[in-house]
Amino acid sequence: RISLLSFALIVSPWSNPALAEKLVPITTSEGMVLLQTSKSVSDYGSLMEAFLTQANLAYCGVASAVMVLNSLAIPAPPVDGFRNYHFWTQDNIFDSDSSQLVISPAKIKRQGMTLQEVQNLLSHHGVSSKRLHGDILSLSAFRSLLKTNLDDSSDRLIVNYDRRVIGQKGGGHFSPLAAYDAITDKVLILDVARYRYPSVWVKTHDLWRAMRTLDGISGLKRGILSIE
Amino acid sequence: RISLLSFALIVSPWSNPALAEKLVPITTSEGMVLLQTSKSVSDYGSLMEAFLTQANLAYCGVASAVMVLNSLAIPAPPVDGFRNYHFWTQDNIFDSDSSQLVISPAKIKRQGMTLQEVQNLLSHHGVSSKRLHGDILSLSAFRSLLKTNLDDSSDRLIVNYDRRVIGQKGGGHFSPLAAYDAITDKVLILDVARYRYPSVWVKTHDLWRAMRTLDGISGLKRGILSIE
Ligand SMILES: [Ca+2]
Ligand SMILES: [Ca+2]
Ligand SMILES: [Ca+2]
Ligand SMILES: [Ca+2]
Repeated sequence: RISLLSFALIVSPWSNPALAEKLVPITTSEGMVLLQTSKSVSDYGSLMEAFLTQANLAYCGVASAVMVLNSLAIPAPPVDGFRNYHFWTQDNIFDSDSSQLVISPAKIKRQGMTLQEVQNLLSHHGVSSKRLHGDILSLSAFRSLLKTNLDDSSDRLIVNYDRRVIGQKGGGHFSPLAAYDAITDKVLILDVARYRYPSVWVKTHDLWRAMRTLDGISGLKRGILSIE
Repeated sequence: RISLLSFALIVSPWSNPALAEKLVPITTSEGMVLLQTSKSVSDYGSLMEAFLTQANLAYCGVASAVMVLNSLAIPAPPVDGFRNYHFWTQDNIFDSDSSQLVISPAKIKRQGMTLQEVQNLLSHHGVSSKRLHGDILSLSAFRSLLKTNLDDSSDRLIVNYDRRVIGQKGGGHFSPLAAYDAITDKVLILDVARYRYPSVWVKTHDLWRAMRTLDGISGLKRGILSIE
């Protein structure tokens, strides 16, 4: 016998309706108002221009890295069929032999990526970052990081978190962060799983808790990459 | 002997610097301020979520149609490798046999699409539109259309224009429109040729003139699709 609540939870796209109620999709009027009033939007335009859907169910880390490389205008390899135009794709980010040594597409398709692996992939293409695991980052340090980085167009943030802790269904996930609103204390995740969820504004505290979850593959807590 | 001005025009990304100066990329602070102050932004969020790069040099019409279908949440076919997730791509928009009769990928790769062909492709997937050629649309009617449509989340606009008339290099092009700012009288083109140009705010008058150019393939003026 399934109770009405259980039924609602099963068919709902949310794992936790109470948590999920606080999420504001960018596709709503409220989400747009937040974008229009947010004061920390310096990364937003170039990330929006690079926004794409992860190429398969396990490629959220790859998609996030590609978005960051394109948004920072890091010199890219050519792309088949595009003549002289060069830009990063979820394919050519692995082009050179040594890229395959950093982390292989086959391995990623099986088990996704860890925070360190995304850091290594970016580093391999000349982009350095600080890896901040959720257990060493206080809530106030996280909030400061959001305000500072999202107000500075020269750096980027890729967050690694457990969807369930912000009220969505799923597990570990990566996406870039694009804006911060101080009034509501919410941050905008440009969610690369675009077939599944819209980009949402999430409470800083909820995302922080979602970053403090254990990644079974690395044995470390998830967290955030602060990218220069 | 090349004059300094000629040299500048050759290496410049702009065909007409005076015109191009009026273009405001979304990746600049000014572009972001326009987005934040614009009052007609109802289509923006869902188009941003669907924003993608045209899959080859001739696919701007295809990319625009895919963005509109996804942004309107039109029921889509499945996508290889994405289990039960369904969304439109520049590949599956041609999936069924009858799609190939409307317009074939091979033909598009050779010569792009006309305004009518983009209309037919959308119509084939159940989405109707009004085709407004540039020569029958007055500037004030065009401006009204922008204000009304971009303030209404249930409909969309795909514009077909000649890049050179707004100051860019190239020729005929298609992209969705995403927002309108009444104070500066500028409209935001979400440019699907993301490897080539950023999305820009353009003066209504300049885009209108660019829509009034002749498409040599159809023998008709370019224009705009007003999509329900
Ligand atoms: Ca910096
Ligand atoms: Ca930044
Ligand atoms: Ca309507
Ligand atoms: Ca509309």
